[in-house]
Amino acid sequence: MLSVEDSVRTLPTFTDVAAAADRLQGRVLRTPVWRSARLDARTGRRVFLKCENLQHVGAFKYRGALNALLHRQAAGTPPGLVATHSSGNHGAALARAARELGWECGVVVPRDTSAAKLANIRAQGVEPLLCEPGLAAREAATARLIAERGAELVHPFDDARVIAGQGTAAVELLAEVPHLDVLSAPVGGGGLLGGSALAARAMARECRVIGVEPELADDAARSFRSGARVGFATPPPTLADGLRGSIGALPFELCRRHVDDVLTVSEAGIVRAMRVMLEECCLLIEPSSAVPVAALLEGRLGAPGDAVGIILSGGNVDLGLCPFLAGRATT
Amino acid sequence: MLSVEDSVRTLPTFTDVAAAADRLQGRVLRTPVWRSARLDARTGRRVFLKCENLQHVGAFKYRGALNALLHRQAAGTPPGLVATHSSGNHGAALARAARELGWECGVVVPRDTSAAKLANIRAQGVEPLLCEPGLAAREAATARLIAERGAELVHPFDDARVIAGQGTAAVELLAEVPHLDVLSAPVGGGGLLGGSALAARAMARECRVIGVEPELADDAARSFRSGARVGFATPPPTLADGLRGSIGALPFELCRRHVDDVLTVSEAGIVRAMRVMLEECCLLIEPSSAVPVAALLEGRLGAPGDAVGIILSGGNVDLGLCPFLAGRATT
Repeated sequence: MLSVEDSVRTLPTFTDVAAAADRLQGRVLRTPVWRSARLDARTGRRVFLKCENLQHVGAFKYRGALNALLHRQAAGTPPGLVATHSSGNHGAALARAARELGWECGVVVPRDTSAAKLANIRAQGVEPLLCEPGLAAREAATARLIAERGAELVHPFDDARVIAGQGTAAVELLAEVPHLDVLSAPVGGGGLLGGSALAARAMARECRVIGVEPELADDAARSFRSGARVGFATPPPTLADGLRGSIGALPFELCRRHVDDVLTVSEAGIVRAMRVMLEECCLLIEPSSAVPVAALLEGRLGAPGDAVGIILSGGNVDLGLCPFLAGRATT
Repeated sequence: MLSVEDSVRTLPTFTDVAAAADRLQGRVLRTPVWRSARLDARTGRRVFLKCENLQHVGAFKYRGALNALLHRQAAGTPPGLVATHSSGNHGAALARAARELGWECGVVVPRDTSAAKLANIRAQGVEPLLCEPGLAAREAATARLIAERGAELVHPFDDARVIAGQGTAAVELLAEVPHLDVLSAPVGGGGLLGGSALAARAMARECRVIGVEPELADDAARSFRSGARVGFATPPPTLADGLRGSIGALPFELCRRHVDDVLTVSEAGIVRAMRVMLEECCLLIEPSSAVPVAALLEGRLGAPGDAVGIILSGGNVDLGLCPFLAGRATT
């Protein structure tokens, strides 16, 4: 059997995703696959939206976090303290998973985390530990927590158990809609895209897998094109607060092997996509979730008539901060 | 065979609803039944939301309008001119149904109809004819259209074919969730509630059927309690623009026979329900749809643990007019 360290750091396969799907059965919500006649008419595609904004804690992140802890539990580890750093959704997800399974949990979040996401972590009974924005500060604060309190890290994306868990959303989508021509997900750390790509390669060989990220946070696109992983020293100022981190080592390797393309979209495109989803689909999604929708609206996902699946990653948004809701001009 | 006039004015039965479901199969969207863990936790109920805000033209109204025209077509009537008056959604629905089947269509709408609903009618290729607000003005303008151009009326709710069509949303919901303890719908003219009650009585005998309307437009509640149908001479100033009309004769008779209760909710409750649906369910609904949700949030639909179904009637809302989105204080 692999050690914990090895099982975390080994590149996951579809077997890991399938095992995660078994483990999570009945513990995560089987979120609906949403269709909208208006969106189909507007885009000329048949669009299938996997609504992880309706998942527990309002994001797909619950899948990966819970899978990591269930994996530890299956290995016979008694409950202890887990810790992580998070732009918000992974923190809430780990806090909820820990509570479900009787673990303690510490969550480090950057100071610029949205009020909705802070409230979401507190709703799981965990008081977030604030740090300065940026990966270095996040990692340093988490390292202190681990050293001082003997916590075990559940990384938000660079963890094979987390990636395998995130892939289960795509498993459900492809089980329901087997003949997708394109499957798309946003890319931040890359856990969702990596896990989704594992599912698509195994379940729908012809399906193209396309990651989308903000132009302002284009590390994954640049890494994908150059073949060498690059990142940002300071978090880029994109509205998509879930995608400010840089792509992790394991997700990057999965992208290299299994992803067909990584596109980028503008901030104006993200805002427009949020507005279109609200006005034409009656769905509120957070800016990170709007990123692949923006590419869809620009005609850049698949061809006319194609079946396009998009994983709507989350719905935790401060209504007061929505640019178009606050009445500012958009596009 | 009944004459057209008779088939319109005869109280519909579940047989008519079932025939409508057959007729509409493949022509209307089978809208998703939405669940939200957060809404369940908040209300202590298992809540099933039938998302007619995702129906063609953004409202359940397409079911009734299309059923009326398909009924005419089945009777061998060649396409001609149909006309109606509408607060917006029925007009768009009839316009689309007419276009689908090769009829011409005239739609009278009151001047205070929202921009979103006017745009929705125009999107079906019909230029709305504006009249003063109020049932009398609407009926007069429609009567002129009928007299001058030989149009045939498809009334928005006092028409057996329309009521039978509206009932098909509840048929789909009950087919998917057979053990509902409560089924609730908003009441304006009463077509949706009447059709839903026919479905529930036949498909789920133990299910309580509860209509909800704004306090400001409480004609159905007062009629239900007194046993005598009353209405408003001028449209009441509720935010729920789809419910300003008074309950029709046929729907009232169906309510008397098959509905268990009619509740009322405040304007503040309606706004709060819209906000909760957006923040906790990521769903944008129009004020009329928020009316039964308001009753749910006040603990007035069913008991803790009950399975409660709500028909979310529509999603056509001017974002700029949403009180809470414009930043005004709500509750």
